[in-house]
Amino acid sequence: MVIPGAALSLVRRPDTAFVIHGRSEECLPLLDQHPALKAVTTFVHSDVAIRMDDKPSQALRQGRYKSSMWRALDSVKKGEADAAVSAGNTGALMAMSKFCLRTMAQVDRPAIAAIWPTMKGESIVLDVGATIGADARHLVDLAIMGSAMAQIVFDIDRPSVGLLNVGVEEIKGVEEVKSAGRILKETNFPHLTYAGFVEGDDIGKGTVDVIVTEGFAGNIALKTAEGTAKQIASYLRSAMSRTLMAKIGYLFAKGAFDALRAKMDPRRANGGVFLGLDGIVIKSHGGTDAMGFAAAIDLGYDMVKHDLLSKIRDSLEVNFPNAAAEAVASPETSE
Amino acid sequence: MVIPGAALSLVRRPDTAFVIHGRSEECLPLLDQHPALKAVTTFVHSDVAIRMDDKPSQALRQGRYKSSMWRALDSVKKGEADAAVSAGNTGALMAMSKFCLRTMAQVDRPAIAAIWPTMKGESIVLDVGATIGADARHLVDLAIMGSAMAQIVFDIDRPSVGLLNVGVEEIKGVEEVKSAGRILKETNFPHLTYAGFVEGDDIGKGTVDVIVTEGFAGNIALKTAEGTAKQIASYLRSAMSRTLMAKIGYLFAKGAFDALRAKMDPRRANGGVFLGLDGIVIKSHGGTDAMGFAAAIDLGYDMVKHDLLSKIRDSLEVNFPNAAAEAVASPETSE
Repeated sequence: MVIPGAALSLVRRPDTAFVIHGRSEECLPLLDQHPALKAVTTFVHSDVAIRMDDKPSQALRQGRYKSSMWRALDSVKKGEADAAVSAGNTGALMAMSKFCLRTMAQVDRPAIAAIWPTMKGESIVLDVGATIGADARHLVDLAIMGSAMAQIVFDIDRPSVGLLNVGVEEIKGVEEVKSAGRILKETNFPHLTYAGFVEGDDIGKGTVDVIVTEGFAGNIALKTAEGTAKQIASYLRSAMSRTLMAKIGYLFAKGAFDALRAKMDPRRANGGVFLGLDGIVIKSHGGTDAMGFAAAIDLGYDMVKHDLLSKIRDSLEVNFPNAAAEAVASPETSE
Repeated sequence: MVIPGAALSLVRRPDTAFVIHGRSEECLPLLDQHPALKAVTTFVHSDVAIRMDDKPSQALRQGRYKSSMWRALDSVKKGEADAAVSAGNTGALMAMSKFCLRTMAQVDRPAIAAIWPTMKGESIVLDVGATIGADARHLVDLAIMGSAMAQIVFDIDRPSVGLLNVGVEEIKGVEEVKSAGRILKETNFPHLTYAGFVEGDDIGKGTVDVIVTEGFAGNIALKTAEGTAKQIASYLRSAMSRTLMAKIGYLFAKGAFDALRAKMDPRRANGGVFLGLDGIVIKSHGGTDAMGFAAAIDLGYDMVKHDLLSKIRDSLEVNFPNAAAEAVASPETSE
């Protein structure tokens, strides 16, 4: 789906050029089928391909310098490409991205941001699984990086940001979230509006533009929502095929069902954005098709065009004054 | 909804007797409308009612000994009731339950277990928010307690148990989950089948009978799924009212939509079970109606009839041999 996806994205964004890394025996015949793409593509043959089930350490050992994944990232590092897009192994891609591109000077740990369809439109949720555990400072970094991305994706000046929390007061263990909340409240960050704590059901409601959470909970939330959507789609299919009346109803309402399916189509908002790296990396869903992969490329294109990295760097430098750093360093006070 | 709910549950389980705690001026007129319930009810007047937005510490300060919530729990402690059911403030109910009923000797911290509708039927997910953070031993306790509950709810001997994890290998911070996995694998617990790690989307798939997770992630998962279900229901409603054809289709398929609505009805599986306490406490959803509250009472009834507490106690004593305790104490080895 990579080559047909690139061809599709090129139609929509005709000023794109591609560097495609892969096995020539598989890729070149496909490229021949897409002459317009071929005309703007530099193809680089790689013998080594990272497998979907390789562990990150294994991928690094076997694939550093010579795999197509590494070389795609290296293209970004060398300035031959502005963004890398991959539908490969997420853990390996993140490990190689950290190794090849390095994190930004101000950021300790990178994050993966997902675009999440909501009742109001879309929101950005991060981190959905790059790093597990987060102190207050990392959560504030996430808020800043997610807001920079939201400015681009939603074309708004001051995205609203919520911290994901549980609806139980005075409970141990969420000190990091509370502390991050205090920093976001006390520091008047110019490029975001802090909206307080949100709960899991606020994600789907679209209560805020950016939902910030630690990577374990974020990944669980993302996968749980995907599972719930599949579950309800399956209920709906079985309900609509159970009786003759339901089948007739389905035929009449087919246009509406098609619209619903399009709305819920995970390919529309495909692409996790790696944030906090010295380069733009987009992770496409592994099981997607050309349309989904094209959406991931489009996303990368938009991040480049609107200069995501400068936005993040500027926000991190300008927005994190000493007051905030002190608030992080100061002992936690319970509310 | 409490009194009509109790009346409804009594029809289904006619050997129940009730002790109802509340304000007499509000409750007695309602009780008069349900003579069958009134005949098996001891009513106890309480002046103090815990509010939904009271913090747990506040509730304890103002409501201990004298609130209807406390007294309902105290009825269980004194043996006047076999289970307490409340649709009140979750945090307050848990704090009071710990204070009034105490945790079981073998359990450090209680948990809340939810019954989760899946593509295959139902699963039990715990902890959905009683305690934040969990070490390996607590996760194993959750597995044992959840399995005891699953034996009753699903009427099976050896429920399958999965540990909720993220799909990223070799990542820091989930040592507790890995360590709990090793214990569950190495210790052959007779009343459960350990099925390994599961991810967020496995919950809706019904991959296992019992999903074990720490309370923060569990609460986020539960709320996120609720949010996603509401979001899709709203998409569906709007799709079905958009065009005339869709409206006609809806009329034909109304029976199917009603069946779908019934299937997704959160009242069907209403009731979080508090586990690890020296007494049975069921938390009904706050925003439910008589039908939902009746489901919570039914659940409490079943837990009593099948002696949940003994099942848990026996499992904890028999199933946690020294080998497991040593595995917990031994230093973590990475995989």
